[in-house]
Amino acid sequence: MQNKKDREILLSHGSGGKASKDLLSMVYNILGDVVINRGEDSGLISTTEKSAMTTDSYVIDPIFFPGGDIGKLSIYGTVNDLAMVGAKPKFITVSLLLEEGFSFSSLEKILHSIKEAAKETGVKIAAGDTKVVSKGKLDKIFVNTAGVGKIIHAQDISSQNAQVGDDIIVSGDIGDHGTAIMAHRNKFESKLKSDCASVYPLVEKLIEANVEIHTLRDPTRGGLASILNEIAFSSRVDIELEETKIPIKNTVQGICDALGIDPLYMACEGRVVIVSPSSNTEKVLEILHKEASGKNAAHIGKVINKSQNPNLLLKTFIGSRRILPLLTREQTPRIC
Amino acid sequence: MQNKKDREILLSHGSGGKASKDLLSMVYNILGDVVINRGEDSGLISTTEKSAMTTDSYVIDPIFFPGGDIGKLSIYGTVNDLAMVGAKPKFITVSLLLEEGFSFSSLEKILHSIKEAAKETGVKIAAGDTKVVSKGKLDKIFVNTAGVGKIIHAQDISSQNAQVGDDIIVSGDIGDHGTAIMAHRNKFESKLKSDCASVYPLVEKLIEANVEIHTLRDPTRGGLASILNEIAFSSRVDIELEETKIPIKNTVQGICDALGIDPLYMACEGRVVIVSPSSNTEKVLEILHKEASGKNAAHIGKVINKSQNPNLLLKTFIGSRRILPLLTREQTPRIC
Repeated sequence: MQNKKDREILLSHGSGGKASKDLLSMVYNILGDVVINRGEDSGLISTTEKSAMTTDSYVIDPIFFPGGDIGKLSIYGTVNDLAMVGAKPKFITVSLLLEEGFSFSSLEKILHSIKEAAKETGVKIAAGDTKVVSKGKLDKIFVNTAGVGKIIHAQDISSQNAQVGDDIIVSGDIGDHGTAIMAHRNKFESKLKSDCASVYPLVEKLIEANVEIHTLRDPTRGGLASILNEIAFSSRVDIELEETKIPIKNTVQGICDALGIDPLYMACEGRVVIVSPSSNTEKVLEILHKEASGKNAAHIGKVINKSQNPNLLLKTFIGSRRILPLLTREQTPRIC
Repeated sequence: MQNKKDREILLSHGSGGKASKDLLSMVYNILGDVVINRGEDSGLISTTEKSAMTTDSYVIDPIFFPGGDIGKLSIYGTVNDLAMVGAKPKFITVSLLLEEGFSFSSLEKILHSIKEAAKETGVKIAAGDTKVVSKGKLDKIFVNTAGVGKIIHAQDISSQNAQVGDDIIVSGDIGDHGTAIMAHRNKFESKLKSDCASVYPLVEKLIEANVEIHTLRDPTRGGLASILNEIAFSSRVDIELEETKIPIKNTVQGICDALGIDPLYMACEGRVVIVSPSSNTEKVLEILHKEASGKNAAHIGKVINKSQNPNLLLKTFIGSRRILPLLTREQTPRIC
């Protein structure tokens, strides 16, 4: 019997036996009514014909960071992936991969975060799983979530649908998440926090206002420049950004300069990039600016032409143009 | 540029940049038309109002084992979890967690297994994810899958629904998977293979024949004795097994004896336990025996009474009765 104070995850917590049952009781106790269909391997869910499904694993290091933790991130991240096809997040699964020796109190904190984020975003946990791996074979905790959502529109929202004449809009300051993690790892003094949040409420507002949307993407791993490269590539178009219009906090720019990293490649975890016809831009910005999480939304660029060799271009503050390529090396490992 | 021969996963394969794109191309190339909705974070799926959702992470060691590998296991395991509530498996997500330095050729083999198992079971891959963790922070490869299936019946199939008068039937020999892995780890000479397979076809046959089913469970982690303990506990009943009726291969019994492990606690990965009214038993066995994967199906016990302190009992070959408890320690770590 371990003391409450120093309780650690043991291999037996992954055995399917007595200790597994105890661990599961703790999980259920904390998660409360966010969990549906307890005690079965599969949960019953009610969906509609037009749904979306997604998955993401979270291996972030450190697991507790300024503005969030791996639990919060694992709910918001998957909720946001559903939002990116215009789906209202409904059901989520949570799989915990634990290292032998991981502390119960950290696990409890993470479960409380999962519960809070699930309540806030309105998703129900339909199924879960826990695995325990012997010490040294997994770093602390990894979390996988998969989600199912209900498509709430009749549009064709896709990375392949960016069109010449579309504007590029971002819902807020970029690079906060990645920069906050890197600052924390490098022990910089800074009050910067991750932007880790659900972007579904913003997406819902746009869809409810009947805004024509061609593409939605959340600029996570690889940041704004990487996801715009992907959109350019998938839609076979060139995209041009205007450097002076991109909202970046001074702190973020400063920390990135110190680290020698371009903030355009820094992960966000609570922003959305909207590609929609330029005739909509004013309306989109008006809707976003009304919301706290969209108050710094900005029109940052446009789709300029079709291309068989798609590029993302940056018009710099002195008026020159340069290519923002896909990165060839990992600048910020385990950022999500 | 790495040689084809000795190519390894690099941190940059998880960056969201150029190398991530290359890795994804390889994945798409191998998986082919098993993948739907390429290039989006969420896949569009078509479901019905009554569906089921599940998830499981796979951390098995070794990743290649007699009768299967982590790829095959990760599809069958999740397909089987859906089958346990009488759901036809339709969509699956696949998340790969990779250690820096993991070999491309092993990954290719695993992806081919995933493809084959998905084709065989008829599931489409709706979304995927890859993460790379630095060397030493994750052991080789972990896989998470989540699944959505369509409920194909109007019954109440649940672990809480085992009733006095029900019989316990198992679809085949028990303990093959766990014993094969343990034999392999201990370098025993043995031709024993994992029973790793989809049990959905058997479940579908039973449902199509309108068999009344109260509970379905696949005896994976913790084996037959653990899942029957869970059913007893969830349904508040005592269950009695008859030792002489439980189908166990001589090889499995022999290896377990040598290892000092009870085969009743050894994982299966291609078996199903059916709890249904005893009036059905003949019909259930007739249906199962017609199928290759059900030819050794056997009636192994019964629900004997309601209980506030539920137990699983074993009537031994000499006629005595003993309790089969939930295990308190992990006998076979990383078996799935």
